[in-house]
Amino acid sequence: MMDPFQRIREEAYEANRQLPGLGLVKFTFGNASAADHTQRVFAIKPSGVSYEKLSPDKMVVVNFEGQVVSGHLRPSSDTLTHAVLYSHWPDIGGIVHTHSTYATAWAQALRDIPIYGTTHADHLPVDVPCAPPMADDMIQGNYEYQTGMQIIQYFQEHGLDYHQIPMILVGGHAPFTWGTTVEKAVYHSAILEEMAFMAYLTEQIHCRVNPSALPPRLKSALIEKHYERKHGSQAYYGQDTND
Amino acid sequence: MMDPFQRIREEAYEANRQLPGLGLVKFTFGNASAADHTQRVFAIKPSGVSYEKLSPDKMVVVNFEGQVVSGHLRPSSDTLTHAVLYSHWPDIGGIVHTHSTYATAWAQALRDIPIYGTTHADHLPVDVPCAPPMADDMIQGNYEYQTGMQIIQYFQEHGLDYHQIPMILVGGHAPFTWGTTVEKAVYHSAILEEMAFMAYLTEQIHCRVNPSALPPRLKSALIEKHYERKHGSQAYYGQDTND
Amino acid sequence: MMDPFQRIREEAYEANRQLPGLGLVKFTFGNASAADHTQRVFAIKPSGVSYEKLSPDKMVVVNFEGQVVSGHLRPSSDTLTHAVLYSHWPDIGGIVHTHSTYATAWAQALRDIPIYGTTHADHLPVDVPCAPPMADDMIQGNYEYQTGMQIIQYFQEHGLDYHQIPMILVGGHAPFTWGTTVEKAVYHSAILEEMAFMAYLTEQIHCRVNPSALPPRLKSALIEKHYERKHGSQAYYGQDTND
Amino acid sequence: MMDPFQRIREEAYEANRQLPGLGLVKFTFGNASAADHTQRVFAIKPSGVSYEKLSPDKMVVVNFEGQVVSGHLRPSSDTLTHAVLYSHWPDIGGIVHTHSTYATAWAQALRDIPIYGTTHADHLPVDVPCAPPMADDMIQGNYEYQTGMQIIQYFQEHGLDYHQIPMILVGGHAPFTWGTTVEKAVYHSAILEEMAFMAYLTEQIHCRVNPSALPPRLKSALIEKHYERKHGSQAYYGQDTND
Repeated sequence: MMDPFQRIREEAYEANRQLPGLGLVKFTFGNASAADHTQRVFAIKPSGVSYEKLSPDKMVVVNFEGQVVSGHLRPSSDTLTHAVLYSHWPDIGGIVHTHSTYATAWAQALRDIPIYGTTHADHLPVDVPCAPPMADDMIQGNYEYQTGMQIIQYFQEHGLDYHQIPMILVGGHAPFTWGTTVEKAVYHSAILEEMAFMAYLTEQIHCRVNPSALPPRLKSALIEKHYERKHGSQAYYGQDTND
Repeated sequence: MMDPFQRIREEAYEANRQLPGLGLVKFTFGNASAADHTQRVFAIKPSGVSYEKLSPDKMVVVNFEGQVVSGHLRPSSDTLTHAVLYSHWPDIGGIVHTHSTYATAWAQALRDIPIYGTTHADHLPVDVPCAPPMADDMIQGNYEYQTGMQIIQYFQEHGLDYHQIPMILVGGHAPFTWGTTVEKAVYHSAILEEMAFMAYLTEQIHCRVNPSALPPRLKSALIEKHYERKHGSQAYYGQDTND
Repeated sequence: MMDPFQRIREEAYEANRQLPGLGLVKFTFGNASAADHTQRVFAIKPSGVSYEKLSPDKMVVVNFEGQVVSGHLRPSSDTLTHAVLYSHWPDIGGIVHTHSTYATAWAQALRDIPIYGTTHADHLPVDVPCAPPMADDMIQGNYEYQTGMQIIQYFQEHGLDYHQIPMILVGGHAPFTWGTTVEKAVYHSAILEEMAFMAYLTEQIHCRVNPSALPPRLKSALIEKHYERKHGSQAYYGQDTND
Repeated sequence: MMDPFQRIREEAYEANRQLPGLGLVKFTFGNASAADHTQRVFAIKPSGVSYEKLSPDKMVVVNFEGQVVSGHLRPSSDTLTHAVLYSHWPDIGGIVHTHSTYATAWAQALRDIPIYGTTHADHLPVDVPCAPPMADDMIQGNYEYQTGMQIIQYFQEHGLDYHQIPMILVGGHAPFTWGTTVEKAVYHSAILEEMAFMAYLTEQIHCRVNPSALPPRLKSALIEKHYERKHGSQAYYGQDTND
C-alpha cells in the first residue's frame, strides 16, 4: 500500500539534507517542511536529530492544527510555527527555518535588511522585514504558535504580500522563509543569507566615506526592472520550462 | 561537418564551469561569454540554468547585434551588455559578470575601489572604477543594452583604456570583467574579488588609528613598478611562453 | 588484560580528532580531555603533536593532581588547568581548550559576549563570562594550575553554576569549555565560536544605526523560553532518548 | 650522479605546494624557497607558474648573489629579496612570501600588528613589524634587491632579532616570513595570517565599547610566559623530539 505522505516526506528530507551543505545550519539547528494542502498536512524534521541521520521515513507528518499524524519521533520544536503559516497561507508548499549567521545577526540587531542592490531586487522588491520580539505573555504562552501568528499579523498590518516577500526575520531570533515548494524555500534561505552578508558589507564600506548616514537604497527604477525581469508578467530570465 | 562555433562554445562552457568553484557565483547568478571577432559572434551561458547542468552544446551563440545565431535555449538575460562591449572593443575575447560578494558590496556602496597595495597594482594601475546607476529612462528602456553603453561611455568620458583596466563596477548592481580571452576575464573576476576584500579590510584596520581619513593610496612609484614588472614592455614576471 | 583507561582514551582521541574539521583549531593548537571520576584520571592530547598523527594509545592519562599515570608522551602544556577543573567540578566528564578565532578575539578584547539572540539562549541563559588576565605573580608561578584556579574562583565569586554555563573566556588568552562528556564539550566549543561570530556581527550591524550604544540584550522572557525548552524540567526539544 | 640540489628542490617544492591548501595564496601569487648555506644556494618557485603544475625539478636554483645556477625556468620575480635575506642571515633555511588576505591588509594599512593575545605571544614576543614603503629611488632601482635590504636594515635599526621575529610586513605590499627550515617558514606564514585575522577582530570588538582607544596590549607577564614556555631554555611545550 502506498504511503499517502511519500511525496512530502521525500521533499522535506531532501530539503533538510541540503541545509548543512549550503552553510545554513550547524548541528541540529534549523528545520524544513513540505506541505500537502489537499490533505492539510506537512512533513517536518524530527527535533534534535542530526542531519546525517535523517531519512524520508524519519520525517514527522503533522496536520495544520499541529497534531502528529504519522511518525514515531517528536517533530521539530518549531512545528506549530510551520502549522500556523500553512493554515493561513494557501499558496506555500514549503517552509525553512535556519539560524544562518548573517541573517540571524540582522535579526539580533532588530533591523530590516535594506535593499541596497540588484542581487536583493532580483528576489524581492522591498527591504527584508524584521518583526520585533513578541510581548512577554505571548512568549510565555504557546510560544511557537504565537511566533507563527506574529508573522501572519506582521504581514497583514504592514500590507505585505507573502507571495512577493518569501521571508521574514523574527527579531532576536532568526529567519523563516517559504515558497511554493520547499525547494524554493531552501533557495530563499540561501539567498537571504547572501543578501544579509552583502548588506552588512555595503554599510561597512559606505560608512568609511560617510559615517553618519546609511548607504542610499537602490533607486526605484532599478528595483522594478530587476524584480520584474525575473518575476513580472513579462519576465525574460530563465527558460520557459524551468519555473 | 565541423561546428564553426566549437571553440567559443568550449571556452565559454569552461569559463562558466569555473565560476562556482572559485566562489564567485551562487546558484544561477553570473555568466561568462567567449567571442569570435572574425565571425562577430559570442557563446554565452543560457539564462537561469544551473552550472552543473551546463555543457558546451548548451551555450547559446549570439551575434554582436544580440541576435541568437545558434542554440535552443534563451541566452543570459545580460546578453545585450556583452554584445555592446564586444562590438565596441575589438580586443576583448571574453567577458564575465558575477555578483561576487565583496566586489558587489563596493558596487552597492557606489564607491571606486582605491588602490591600496601591490596586489591591486599587479593587475591595474588605477582605482577600480564604479559607474553610477543609470538614469531612469535608460533603465526603463533597453536596460541590458544601456548597461553596456554606460560602460563604454564611462570609459570614454574618464579617458580610461579597456586594455589596461579590465573591470568595472556598475553602481547598485555588480562587476563586469573582460580580457583577451574568457579565461583571463575569469581571472580578473577572481582577482577583483580579492582586491575588493583586501581594500575593505585595509579601511577597517586603518580607521582604528585614524577614523576620519581613508588609508593613503599606494605611492606612485610602487604602482608603476608593480604594474610594469608584470605588464610593461620590460616585464619580467612569469615565463616568456605563458602569456 | 583490559586497559582500564580505554574508554577515556578513545573519547579523548575522538574529540581531539574532531576539532580541526570543525574549524576550531589550526596546527597543534587546542586540546580535549575526557575524565573518569571513579579513577580520578583523565586522558588528554599529547603536547605539540599534530592532529592527524593522533591515536587513542597516544593520549596521555593523567590523575587529578596532574601526574602522568600512563603514556610515553608529554601531555598538553595546559594539562594542569584540566586537572584543576576536574578535581573541583565532579559533574564534568570532558574539557576542550581551543584558540578558535572569534571566541579568542572576544577574549583578547577582554569582553563578555552579550546574549543578543535565541541561538545564544538555546545554550546558556547569561552572557559568556570573560575572566580578566591574572595577576603577575600567578602567571609567573604555576601558570596552568593558576589558570584553572582562576576559572574556579571566577565562577564562585560571580555566583555562576558550571552546570548551566559550560564555557568561559580567559582574558587575553582563549576559551575553555566543558560538559558531562567530552563530546558535549566539543559541541560547546563549536557553538561558542558561532555565538561569538554572531554577536560580533550583531554589534557591527546595530552600530550603523546607533553608534553610541550596544544592541539591546535579548529580553528575559525569550531567554527563559529558549533556555527552558531545551534544558528545563519541561524541555521539549530533541528526542527523549538522545540527551 | 646525484643532484647536489635535490634536498632543497624537494623542500621548496613541498613548501610551495602547501601554500594554496593553507589558504595563503591564490593563482600564482607567493613563493617559497629553501636554502643550502654550505653551497650558498637556494631553490625557489619559477615565476608565474601555477601551483598544480609545479614539481621538484621545476624549482630554480639560485645562488646568494641572485644568479641562476640550475633550472630552465625564470625564477620568481622576488628572487633577489630572498637572496639578500639568505646572504645576511646565516641561520634561516627557508623563506615564504605570500599576499595572504589579512596580513596583506595590515601591510596596506601601514600598521604593525599589535600583540593582543597569547596566540600571538606563543610565536613572537613583540608586535609584528611593518616596514614603511621604500623611497622612490630604491623602488625605481633594483627593486627586489632593495626590498631585501630594507628588511635587513629595518631589523638592524630597530634592534630586532630575526631568530625571534620570523616575519615582517612590507608596507603597501605584503608579508615575508622565514625560519630555520622552509617548513617552519610556511608555518609562520599561516600563523601570521591567523594573528592578523584575530587582531583585526579584536579591534573591531573592542571599539564597540571604547571607540577612541585601541585594545590594551597583552600584559608583559603573559607575553613572557607564553613565549618562554614554547621557545625559552625551559620550554615545556611539545615533545623533546619534535623541535
